[in-house]
Amino acid sequence: MITKRITFSTTTELKKSLFRPTFKTEDLLNKIAEIYNAIVEFGDAKLIEYTKKFDGVSLNSSEIELDLATTVATIDPLLEKAIKVAYENIYNFHKAQIKEDLTLETQPGVTCYRKSKAIEKVGLYIPGGSAPLFSTVLMLAIPAKIAGCKEVILCTPPNKNGEIHPAIIFTAKLCGIKKIYKAGGAQAICAMAVGTQTIPKVYKIFGPGNQYVTAAKQYVSLMGVGIDLPAGPSELMVVANSNRNPAFIAADLLSQAEHGTDSQVVIVSDSITLLNEINLEIGLQLNSLPRKDIAEKALSYAVEIIVKNDDEAIEVINEYAPEHLILMVNNENKYIENINNAGSIFIGDYTPESAGDYASGTNHTLPTSGFAKQYSGVSLDSFIKNITYQKITKEGLKDLGVHIEIMAENEGLMAHKNAVSFRLESLKKEVDL
Amino acid sequence: MITKRITFSTTTELKKSLFRPTFKTEDLLNKIAEIYNAIVEFGDAKLIEYTKKFDGVSLNSSEIELDLATTVATIDPLLEKAIKVAYENIYNFHKAQIKEDLTLETQPGVTCYRKSKAIEKVGLYIPGGSAPLFSTVLMLAIPAKIAGCKEVILCTPPNKNGEIHPAIIFTAKLCGIKKIYKAGGAQAICAMAVGTQTIPKVYKIFGPGNQYVTAAKQYVSLMGVGIDLPAGPSELMVVANSNRNPAFIAADLLSQAEHGTDSQVVIVSDSITLLNEINLEIGLQLNSLPRKDIAEKALSYAVEIIVKNDDEAIEVINEYAPEHLILMVNNENKYIENINNAGSIFIGDYTPESAGDYASGTNHTLPTSGFAKQYSGVSLDSFIKNITYQKITKEGLKDLGVHIEIMAENEGLMAHKNAVSFRLESLKKEVDL
Repeated sequence: MITKRITFSTTTELKKSLFRPTFKTEDLLNKIAEIYNAIVEFGDAKLIEYTKKFDGVSLNSSEIELDLATTVATIDPLLEKAIKVAYENIYNFHKAQIKEDLTLETQPGVTCYRKSKAIEKVGLYIPGGSAPLFSTVLMLAIPAKIAGCKEVILCTPPNKNGEIHPAIIFTAKLCGIKKIYKAGGAQAICAMAVGTQTIPKVYKIFGPGNQYVTAAKQYVSLMGVGIDLPAGPSELMVVANSNRNPAFIAADLLSQAEHGTDSQVVIVSDSITLLNEINLEIGLQLNSLPRKDIAEKALSYAVEIIVKNDDEAIEVINEYAPEHLILMVNNENKYIENINNAGSIFIGDYTPESAGDYASGTNHTLPTSGFAKQYSGVSLDSFIKNITYQKITKEGLKDLGVHIEIMAENEGLMAHKNAVSFRLESLKKEVDL
Repeated sequence: MITKRITFSTTTELKKSLFRPTFKTEDLLNKIAEIYNAIVEFGDAKLIEYTKKFDGVSLNSSEIELDLATTVATIDPLLEKAIKVAYENIYNFHKAQIKEDLTLETQPGVTCYRKSKAIEKVGLYIPGGSAPLFSTVLMLAIPAKIAGCKEVILCTPPNKNGEIHPAIIFTAKLCGIKKIYKAGGAQAICAMAVGTQTIPKVYKIFGPGNQYVTAAKQYVSLMGVGIDLPAGPSELMVVANSNRNPAFIAADLLSQAEHGTDSQVVIVSDSITLLNEINLEIGLQLNSLPRKDIAEKALSYAVEIIVKNDDEAIEVINEYAPEHLILMVNNENKYIENINNAGSIFIGDYTPESAGDYASGTNHTLPTSGFAKQYSGVSLDSFIKNITYQKITKEGLKDLGVHIEIMAENEGLMAHKNAVSFRLESLKKEVDL
């Protein structure tokens, strides 16, 4: 049950009530530096040592790599079908994100271009733990495949028997991944960042993980390796008007709460009656959940916010910038138009967050901790980069050159000016001939 | 003159010869943490203290903010004209980068959307120093304006008299910026990241700077504030075939070398004759440069690479991933098709880097240090973020729901399953009625 209920007042007060636990990865950076340096120096040997220490599995160096070309994975046919349906939807929504090359003649004889190129080498991290997160394999490997990344590797910790779950293997193969590396935690991130005898070095690293994985991603980003997003605990905000189904909303809130004890759950409504009904429903639904204890703990930090109207609700949303936002509201369009800060938005009574988590087509790797104010979720763009090009004709430089010369001179950069002047002089001589 | 000449052999050897000085900002992070914490605690008071200490100027708190609505800036009419021409070209090329909203019905009744939203609050940093970098104001403020960022602020250190250069003020006003804050260095970055009594907190920070500014940007990025790019010293690689004009190439190399003693300059050619001619030209042009000493020092680290053919040259380019690349080659299209890693590419004899630095239309804020392997330069995209949306109809959930249920169950997340199951049960009851 959610015990913290507040009424919308001022933004300052709101900020205080919606305060998220800060994610102090800086404190971990020294520990990560140690792991990083050890991997740089000793490569596989150290990786094997960490895998023994943290995952409790002894691997020899030839067992780190799993070649998917020669690996068979059998899974329940119903799960296989579900993964394939999800694959299609995610593939199609990300395929639609391909952008055309851009060409523009900005002035006569001055043509600027932009082309997208895939990041050649990317590393995907899939955490271990109680269940196989094959859905995250879909969310990362599908856009990597569409982008055309040449080398897509996947690191995930092995189970106690040194094995990878068949659902992970099945999904990775489906997405065209050729190699899985049995490595987890900060050591896996460091290994992908610098390369070992077995694990190739990559240019960008994607995927969720615990605080060590997150800190390792931050650390390697300081070293120039790209990362998808800074990560914090997962979040759901639901905004609902009075006439909505409390059982649906309670189920959605619980689906967020079961992720982890640090999951962030917020419900915003103009109806105290609805809030009370939701709490009743939570009580009814909670008991049958296998992850009841986790959900209960997460809910003890959850917040209910009572608003008077849509404007207040929208202000709450934009201030909080939720990772996931479910809108069960009457004026949908007003919300969609005025919400600036959110990761992914689920509209209407029949659009649970679960749909986007698994199978509708959108990506589930999204900005948490309010980072939706400045970050997008993972998309096709996360796997490409753009190169700009320009080509200037003689005539084009004759027109533009003088302006470049003046600007360079005023910035005190005479060699920049000369690069134009020598060319203009040479063109003048051509005319004189 | 460039004294280091190597012949293309293996990638491993190449990597060694093209080794860039590593940028050890980690060592500075403790110093930055001190500045950051001081700004958090004392705000303007500490900012004023740092400005006195590092910039040698005493400001009182009412002098930090420069309101451009009431500030007049007069500059040379020729410079004014040049800045306006550059403004138009940069505006048009970035305006062309606007992307359409995306809508796709991934399966019947399941509709996924994507919309771009401007980052609401952005901070631009313009370094001080010997000359006013108004070109960087254009490169950052124009895409911010096109994106529709609500609050665009600019920090730049004042001169010894506490003033901002009129060319900076003129350009900022032209780009619609309303407030300039007189603050520089790491303290300006920290002030924009956390906000002070005078300087507003922003969500993302852009702009070049020295190693302290760079370290401060890295530090605040660990705190969740967005930054444009990790930055290192500027770079130029020129690839030229034998028949090209050595004076043009020498001028281009010098334009890079004059930036700073740590500027990276690389020339790749299949012609030893051309390389010798370029060196002669460098000797001739160098003496007349006001920044001769800087350029000479930078050139002492420069490298010439002799290649046998286009394939070797392309391998060198992709391995080095230059910030700027000038191509004076016969098989332009082969290069353009096969280059994956570069920031911005200048094609042909009449396309000096200076054109893109100032006025052609492309952005000059580009990935250095090999980061072009995974980062794009600044573009309109840098000032927006995408929100994804989905709306599922009753019929849509009936089709997709079962697959979500199976996937959730297999990931051990029963509340995720329930969020679908409760809805499907409710729909079943509707039919039964």
